[in-house]
Amino acid sequence: MPHPFEEFRARRLAGNELVLKTENLGIKRLFSLDKITYEDGVLSRRTKELMGLTGSMVLRCNDCIDYHLDTCVQQGCSKEEIEEAFNIALIIGGSIVIPHLRHAYESLAFLLAERAANTAG
Amino acid sequence: MPHPFEEFRARRLAGNELVLKTENLGIKRLFSLDKITYEDGVLSRRTKELMGLTGSMVLRCNDCIDYHLDTCVQQGCSKEEIEEAFNIALIIGGSIVIPHLRHAYESLAFLLAERAANTAG
Amino acid sequence: MPHPFEEFRARRLAGNELVLKTENLGIKRLFSLDKITYEDGVLSRRTKELMGLTGSMVLRCNDCIDYHLDTCVQQGCSKEEIEEAFNIALIIGGSIVIPHLRHAYESLAFLLAERAANTAG
Amino acid sequence: MPHPFEEFRARRLAGNELVLKTENLGIKRLFSLDKITYEDGVLSRRTKELMGLTGSMVLRCNDCIDYHLDTCVQQGCSKEEIEEAFNIALIIGGSIVIPHLRHAYESLAFLLAERAANTAG
Amino acid sequence: MPHPFEEFRARRLAGNELVLKTENLGIKRLFSLDKITYEDGVLSRRTKELMGLTGSMVLRCNDCIDYHLDTCVQQGCSKEEIEEAFNIALIIGGSIVIPHLRHAYESLAFLLAERAANTAG
Amino acid sequence: MPHPFEEFRARRLAGNELVLKTENLGIKRLFSLDKITYEDGVLSRRTKELMGLTGSMVLRCNDCIDYHLDTCVQQGCSKEEIEEAFNIALIIGGSIVIPHLRHAYESLAFLLAERAANTAG
Repeated sequence: MPHPFEEFRARRLAGNELVLKTENLGIKRLFSLDKITYEDGVLSRRTKELMGLTGSMVLRCNDCIDYHLDTCVQQGCSKEEIEEAFNIALIIGGSIVIPHLRHAYESLAFLLAERAANTAG
Repeated sequence: MPHPFEEFRARRLAGNELVLKTENLGIKRLFSLDKITYEDGVLSRRTKELMGLTGSMVLRCNDCIDYHLDTCVQQGCSKEEIEEAFNIALIIGGSIVIPHLRHAYESLAFLLAERAANTAG
Repeated sequence: MPHPFEEFRARRLAGNELVLKTENLGIKRLFSLDKITYEDGVLSRRTKELMGLTGSMVLRCNDCIDYHLDTCVQQGCSKEEIEEAFNIALIIGGSIVIPHLRHAYESLAFLLAERAANTAG
Repeated sequence: MPHPFEEFRARRLAGNELVLKTENLGIKRLFSLDKITYEDGVLSRRTKELMGLTGSMVLRCNDCIDYHLDTCVQQGCSKEEIEEAFNIALIIGGSIVIPHLRHAYESLAFLLAERAANTAG
Repeated sequence: MPHPFEEFRARRLAGNELVLKTENLGIKRLFSLDKITYEDGVLSRRTKELMGLTGSMVLRCNDCIDYHLDTCVQQGCSKEEIEEAFNIALIIGGSIVIPHLRHAYESLAFLLAERAANTAG
Repeated sequence: MPHPFEEFRARRLAGNELVLKTENLGIKRLFSLDKITYEDGVLSRRTKELMGLTGSMVLRCNDCIDYHLDTCVQQGCSKEEIEEAFNIALIIGGSIVIPHLRHAYESLAFLLAERAANTAG
């Protein structure tokens, strides 16, 4: 049985494919602009993804949190760095962020285990 | 097995019935006021539902999106019109709207297929 | 089979335990500060929980609503008092709150039945 | 020269009069429903205004905060009770609420001085 | 002395010019994408601006409200049509929208008077 | 005449002093917790302030933006780094962020000029 995080990845991928079949150029362009925003610039992709994570958390969007968490872990962020991003989002956004923090910790546990397994391999 | 959108319709109906058993007049009046707001006026119900869809999307509420989408399709809005409403909501609300856009596209696919089947019949 | 509300309680408890394993002091302190806030002061815990419920509802957070509802019922709030809190949240936050109101009524039905059963016992 | 809080009162009054000249019944009805919501019920107006204050603060609306603060002070709430409402809003909404807390403390200082002067008179 | 709405127009123009001096392509592209979104499509610019107005109002952004109001009036929307858009935003967003509704009515009075004067000329 | 940004600094300072006269421990503790959050950790204060800026911008709080901008400039962030933070906030939060972006660019112009003057001295 797939882990809920793997289900999220598959659902997100399928959803984006469905959206991007559109002939509405505005929607396509915003998706493309979104992607470019996180590429290396004067700030590294790594730092940008931590910022995307913070923004997603204060706006309380689990799918956005999961996406940026996934990328943060891929970019080599440590557990402690990610938790400091969590802490910033929690202080900015208050206790209303807590349910999303619980979700984020579950996702993070999966992602760190997956990275450890891949590295070990 | 019912489609998730049909489950949403049933769950919404049952939920509203549960709420409206209340003896709290304020809650009942707001429900009634909400319903009246979208009736034909100097703006058509069709236009109002597209506006309700935009408002629901920028506020990132899937149940509200699904309800207004359902009504937009019933009111004869085309796929392209609805996608322009999506595009407006996406530019106003930014990438944080994307998970709701994915959801909306799934609902829209169901609703357009349902309308086509009904028309064909 | 457990009721969805009991699943929420278990999931919330497990999630908080996972979070609080952290060595990030800022996160732990905010959890602790959050808990203290609702203790009896010049306002009673009962009144504070009703305020927490209103705040959770206008911010549209189901887990937060469920938590404060649970505590409101434990604190002896009547159905009618809770519904007046619902009404305030609904007028402040508008129709976008309705899906959360439906959720809250389902949770409330469970909690009132549970309290009645416990009292009867 | 009028105090900024008195200017707020005048501006709010004039603004509401301008709005309520409308022939749009939906707008008028929502204003009327809003007013009724805070009347004494199974919860007192006093408690309801504290809840309205909390809701306004987590949603970060200075005009709404000022209106409910004004009414809380009229209803005889003490400084300490109002500060506990502030504390609840601050913990729920996080540091993003702080600029509104600063505003609220300025308004509260004016309102408590005004009440003391009126009582002394 | 300029009317506050004229000051808003000047401030907005100067602000956009300052922003668009940037060499950050992402920011420029989002501004350009924003502009294109409201052009005539299968929905008219007029309808899109009413949708932009609704979205701005439920998200409680006075500058955004003023911009879309200005364009709605330029596109020939009647007072009654605009008020139905206000009503939809008010029911969706609740009483927290009221301070923005007061602001919007002040702006609308200026814009309708300006249009009448221009038409009379 | 003081620059608007200097007025902001003075108003913020006076406001915080007014708040912190409180005997409400919860409020004081949250202020203290907020301050600690941005101290150097596994992430540098510099990176954390950029994250605070992003969070403030997507939540659309001018005072919070100004505070974090001020600190980002003090921490030595370049104009280009700050603009990449702006860009991330703009893509996440959408066009509703634009009025706050205009404000942020005005503040940034002041802060960079101030830093240049201080460095030159």
